[in-house]
Amino acid sequence: MSLVSSLLTDLYTPIRDEFAVVERIFDEEIASDLDFINGLCDTVRSYRGKMLRPAMLLLAGKATGELSNGHRTLAAVVEMVHMATLVHDDVLDEASERRRRPTIASIAGNTAAVLLGDHLISHAFHLCSGLQSQYASRRIGATTSMVCEGELLQNHHRGDLELTEDIYFEIIRRKTGALTAVSAELGGKLAGAGNGLVRSLYSYGMSAGVAFQIIDDVLDIVGDECRVGKTLGLDLSRGNLTLPVIHGLAHADRSTAAALRDLLGCARPGGSKQLRALLERTQSISYAVEIARRCVEDAVSQLDLVPHSDAKQSLVAMAEFIIDRQC
Amino acid sequence: MSLVSSLLTDLYTPIRDEFAVVERIFDEEIASDLDFINGLCDTVRSYRGKMLRPAMLLLAGKATGELSNGHRTLAAVVEMVHMATLVHDDVLDEASERRRRPTIASIAGNTAAVLLGDHLISHAFHLCSGLQSQYASRRIGATTSMVCEGELLQNHHRGDLELTEDIYFEIIRRKTGALTAVSAELGGKLAGAGNGLVRSLYSYGMSAGVAFQIIDDVLDIVGDECRVGKTLGLDLSRGNLTLPVIHGLAHADRSTAAALRDLLGCARPGGSKQLRALLERTQSISYAVEIARRCVEDAVSQLDLVPHSDAKQSLVAMAEFIIDRQC
Repeated sequence: MSLVSSLLTDLYTPIRDEFAVVERIFDEEIASDLDFINGLCDTVRSYRGKMLRPAMLLLAGKATGELSNGHRTLAAVVEMVHMATLVHDDVLDEASERRRRPTIASIAGNTAAVLLGDHLISHAFHLCSGLQSQYASRRIGATTSMVCEGELLQNHHRGDLELTEDIYFEIIRRKTGALTAVSAELGGKLAGAGNGLVRSLYSYGMSAGVAFQIIDDVLDIVGDECRVGKTLGLDLSRGNLTLPVIHGLAHADRSTAAALRDLLGCARPGGSKQLRALLERTQSISYAVEIARRCVEDAVSQLDLVPHSDAKQSLVAMAEFIIDRQC
Repeated sequence: MSLVSSLLTDLYTPIRDEFAVVERIFDEEIASDLDFINGLCDTVRSYRGKMLRPAMLLLAGKATGELSNGHRTLAAVVEMVHMATLVHDDVLDEASERRRRPTIASIAGNTAAVLLGDHLISHAFHLCSGLQSQYASRRIGATTSMVCEGELLQNHHRGDLELTEDIYFEIIRRKTGALTAVSAELGGKLAGAGNGLVRSLYSYGMSAGVAFQIIDDVLDIVGDECRVGKTLGLDLSRGNLTLPVIHGLAHADRSTAAALRDLLGCARPGGSKQLRALLERTQSISYAVEIARRCVEDAVSQLDLVPHSDAKQSLVAMAEFIIDRQC
């Protein structure tokens, strides 16, 4: 077991027994009467990684009240939505590896990957609409729309060398923050937390999600592919400007900025190494990590009103883990 | 106005005043705070065609009880789901035209088309989950999963020259029949129709949808591209066997069957014309139209228990229109 997994295993102690139930709900929901679809779903299951979103939902519930079957169902729902976005991302990114395994797109083609992503999102909604109240369905529907808007906004700005930090944050709040935010929010809401607390949990999830995405973008530049377990350097080759690069372009001298611009939007051998070297000059990686650290501080401060418990401690530690993770 | 539109306008008389409301609900739901997304959505709106699914839902409601706001919302939902499948289909099919307009994929790229389809499906679920009861959300979620399974099954059998009629029907029941079936079903259910009647309406929609798809597949071979308003011959070039071709392969003499096999899965100039000529020998087009006609008869017979009304007459005429349509 890697250091990261063992760290997370500790954090997940308060909800450890729930995961098996969540996985069973997940598996039962996506089971098909068509065998080849089950085969594709087996591959999707193998992408299950840190289970951050289900963990956040369950911990938020446990920290503010009692866990119910609704929590377990919704934990499966947010993971399914996340999986759907991963499967579609791999089509869009033309990535060949995900969690050290070949992507659906590379195994079964882009067509199957688009359809399988649709299949997962459909099942997420179906599962969600089995709950007693419409509340969660409504929130999940609003969230997936926000996620799509974030991805569309990112795509709209591909290759845009004028991309500002403001738009970058708008993109990542929607594409990543929205789902972690709603996970923490729904955990509290279903446990009967009051409106103020539910709003704080939403803000916790949003800030944690934004920090997570910044570090993800940093790892795309400085990460070790073997360790991270997915294709890296994709932002560079796709022309997606991320925080370190936006900072670099804004603060570099003329020749460094020209070299940076020249690198973006192409996938040349050694491009990532060159990018790292250029961003070193403006300390842009440290800058991005520092911003992520502040987001984590903000996330943790949102938990002030949550009474002390092991579950609360895990929420704090999960946010702090985001900065230290190397995959 | 084309003959077809004027025919449908007549059929839609009992629900004519509802369409403006349905379109407003649709437009308000997909409106974004991001202008470029609204621009993409304008293109999606221009694909609005026959509005068969909303019409079926509203007519089924009117034929079995009173229309409510729930009907209007669900009419927008089923159209939105349909639009999402069209946008993703155009990615998968590499089609360049839809309703005589360029596809989203050809305007904004495959990435934007995948994301916009996701966006539409998310909004469909969001809209649906605003209704008082979970019932429709649950049924819509189950239906979109079936639609994906149908598309995945079709993709799985691409280029499969052994495809049987049974599997072909399994594919089209899921990918097309499921959504028309649930449209008619929900129309009746929301109007307070009893279980037996709701089941009959589902079967009506299923048989009508299957007939519609068979004729769609026939038009892909014999249609006039200008009239149909979309890229034709796609089944041939993608290696999707449809009813006329399955029949042709099973009934042709050895040399005709070899010529058919040779044609499938490639997009050579004049391929469609050659396919038409080969299928003429086994009267496979007539065979497919005859099967569609029987499906329409079955659809109409499902309405026996529905009391006589203008709305019922329109449901009957809509099913019959499927056979006569040329686009």
